[in-house]
Amino acid sequence: MLKVVSKSEAVRTVLKATAAAVLPTERVALSAACGRVTAADIVAAENIPAFDRSTVDGFALCAADTFGASAAIPAQLDIAGEILMGECTPLHLKHGQCARIATGGMLPAGADAAVMVEHTDSQNGLCLVYQPVFPFENITKKGDDITAGSVAIARHTSLTPAHIGILAALGVKEVPVLQKPMVAIISTGDEISTAPSLGQIRDVNGPLLTDALEAAGCRALYFGAVKDDKEMITRALERCLEQADAVLISGGSSAGSRDMTVDILDTLGEVYFHGIAMKPGKPTIFGMARGKAVFGLPGHPLAAYFVYRLIVKPYLDSLLQQAAAAPLFTATLAQNVPSNHGREEYLCVKKEGESIVPIHSKSGIISVLSAADGYICVPRDAEGLAAGTQVEVWKL
Amino acid sequence: MLKVVSKSEAVRTVLKATAAAVLPTERVALSAACGRVTAADIVAAENIPAFDRSTVDGFALCAADTFGASAAIPAQLDIAGEILMGECTPLHLKHGQCARIATGGMLPAGADAAVMVEHTDSQNGLCLVYQPVFPFENITKKGDDITAGSVAIARHTSLTPAHIGILAALGVKEVPVLQKPMVAIISTGDEISTAPSLGQIRDVNGPLLTDALEAAGCRALYFGAVKDDKEMITRALERCLEQADAVLISGGSSAGSRDMTVDILDTLGEVYFHGIAMKPGKPTIFGMARGKAVFGLPGHPLAAYFVYRLIVKPYLDSLLQQAAAAPLFTATLAQNVPSNHGREEYLCVKKEGESIVPIHSKSGIISVLSAADGYICVPRDAEGLAAGTQVEVWKL
Repeated sequence: MLKVVSKSEAVRTVLKATAAAVLPTERVALSAACGRVTAADIVAAENIPAFDRSTVDGFALCAADTFGASAAIPAQLDIAGEILMGECTPLHLKHGQCARIATGGMLPAGADAAVMVEHTDSQNGLCLVYQPVFPFENITKKGDDITAGSVAIARHTSLTPAHIGILAALGVKEVPVLQKPMVAIISTGDEISTAPSLGQIRDVNGPLLTDALEAAGCRALYFGAVKDDKEMITRALERCLEQADAVLISGGSSAGSRDMTVDILDTLGEVYFHGIAMKPGKPTIFGMARGKAVFGLPGHPLAAYFVYRLIVKPYLDSLLQQAAAAPLFTATLAQNVPSNHGREEYLCVKKEGESIVPIHSKSGIISVLSAADGYICVPRDAEGLAAGTQVEVWKL
Repeated sequence: MLKVVSKSEAVRTVLKATAAAVLPTERVALSAACGRVTAADIVAAENIPAFDRSTVDGFALCAADTFGASAAIPAQLDIAGEILMGECTPLHLKHGQCARIATGGMLPAGADAAVMVEHTDSQNGLCLVYQPVFPFENITKKGDDITAGSVAIARHTSLTPAHIGILAALGVKEVPVLQKPMVAIISTGDEISTAPSLGQIRDVNGPLLTDALEAAGCRALYFGAVKDDKEMITRALERCLEQADAVLISGGSSAGSRDMTVDILDTLGEVYFHGIAMKPGKPTIFGMARGKAVFGLPGHPLAAYFVYRLIVKPYLDSLLQQAAAAPLFTATLAQNVPSNHGREEYLCVKKEGESIVPIHSKSGIISVLSAADGYICVPRDAEGLAAGTQVEVWKL
């Protein structure tokens, strides 16, 4: 009983079936947090900055003392002292006083602004200020950057170096993050060998999917290659279900071994669909076993990668609470793309100047993937796409 | 003697001064090669595929035997046997014969095409073929994907999962890659403390630049924070120059400590420029010491990051033989941006629908960086940029 679905139905089915899955939280050191996803709001325990700071080299002063100052009639202030960097100064300025300050220095009590040294002259303990300054001019006020008690970084943020900078400023040493999803990979096929003789091939999907998963923020558990044997594949799947959040079984491109994967999944759990009306990727299988997602991927590397990208990745993004990626860019198709007779078709494309061209290939040609700048979709009911059409290009 | 240069002069100067630097080659396991840059052409030792393969489930045959076949008058072939997956079949088809074959199976001698099982009927050792097939139809020929002796992956390629798939297919176990540049980071300032009291701050640039460097394919060596002391900074720089390919000294935002960094670099090597006509990032210093690049970065995290992105990153890209990044996208500016009086200005921007808005900030506001979708440049001689202008947005 073949349950063939459209690509969007397939994604919906996967997301619905896995909606209850929640990644546990773990705490990692700040130095290991970049690229991880926060599991909770990070609330600032302090103000950043923690004190009013000067943003210029010059003099801290009371702005009102400079009102009306000009090059002709400068304000004349007593230099009461100097603010040292890193010092909580004991100075308390009175009206008519100022203090030397460097960029980043803490504003002394009584001061509410700073003037750039370029707009002053000083000698014999006196400072001439040639311009008025506004209250709070050249000052970053306490909490301007981040206010104590506010959410500095929201839950489910994928941390960039900039976020790491914020956390460092706040003195956060450990960050609560979502555990990386553990995804197991089983490659199947009697033809797979690590030392292939004629008629055999090496496993490509294992290394390809391992690195794709790791780039997507997962841990990959490569089980290795298994012969097309029902009992061996069943045992491999059972072992992977014990350790992983999800399992990708690639291979079984031929009708017989496809049926075998379906049978095994049907015995261990439930098959949700078997076949997607898309090209490449038609013989894709999805089901749940022991509460975990199991994806049956085509054996051909190009098809396996497209199914990973189009069906598995949305599940991983959802698990990691990340929004689906937007198209990379929109570009003009330089060639006609023929109709695909009722299946959505996904094509690797290459940029050529301002336009894009499809990279033609027979199924299974792995070099296409590495040469592509992205992929496009030919809708299932389109009579192909005409040269000159504007199409969205997506990240592979 | 202040040598102030434009941003593009600064980049040119850095690239010229460091042109002779070459990263050594190292060999890494295939499982550790993703994201690394190849140090040499990877030449295919084998054909991929290594033999003519069927791309369908059906029958291997000699195409000429099917010419003229139709639903009314099918070609009638003897089934000589079955090709098992992974087998170098001993079958040698004669005219009038065919053999069962699955997707990925090795074409037997005498066959030059395959027919899909859907276009046949078979019983009692006979196969009826209802359509003619062309020579080489439904076949991937030996070497179609990669030809033995050809360059499978060129030198200086940044390896993606797709490249890892190609290398796996070829049986490559170790890959010659460029060593990651080792970049040391020294943060300076009397105000920096790991347990700040009032008037002090934590180091932000160390963690921020560490993760930015690692995301750029480098190894970061965070030396830690050093007080504004000429001898201490000199010793730190000397130690870093021993171990690293380049050194980033951040801090010294105040005039006094800037001069200190210049003096130290002048003593240990040569200062190439001191000051860039850009905002943020004016107090940037660059020089060479012991044949290595030394960058003096502003202390403010936002300014330090922009100098990293605009001046240091092009040097790292060049060292790693990677082309400079193109703009992310072009978008319409939703607000006027005022003139910058003769300095190139770089602004963080945020997408709002189809247009972009600058994120206004005082210097040193670290939260701006994490909120931005990219940055724009206001040219040095522009009278600002008017709302409605199309501007290029770059990756931070």
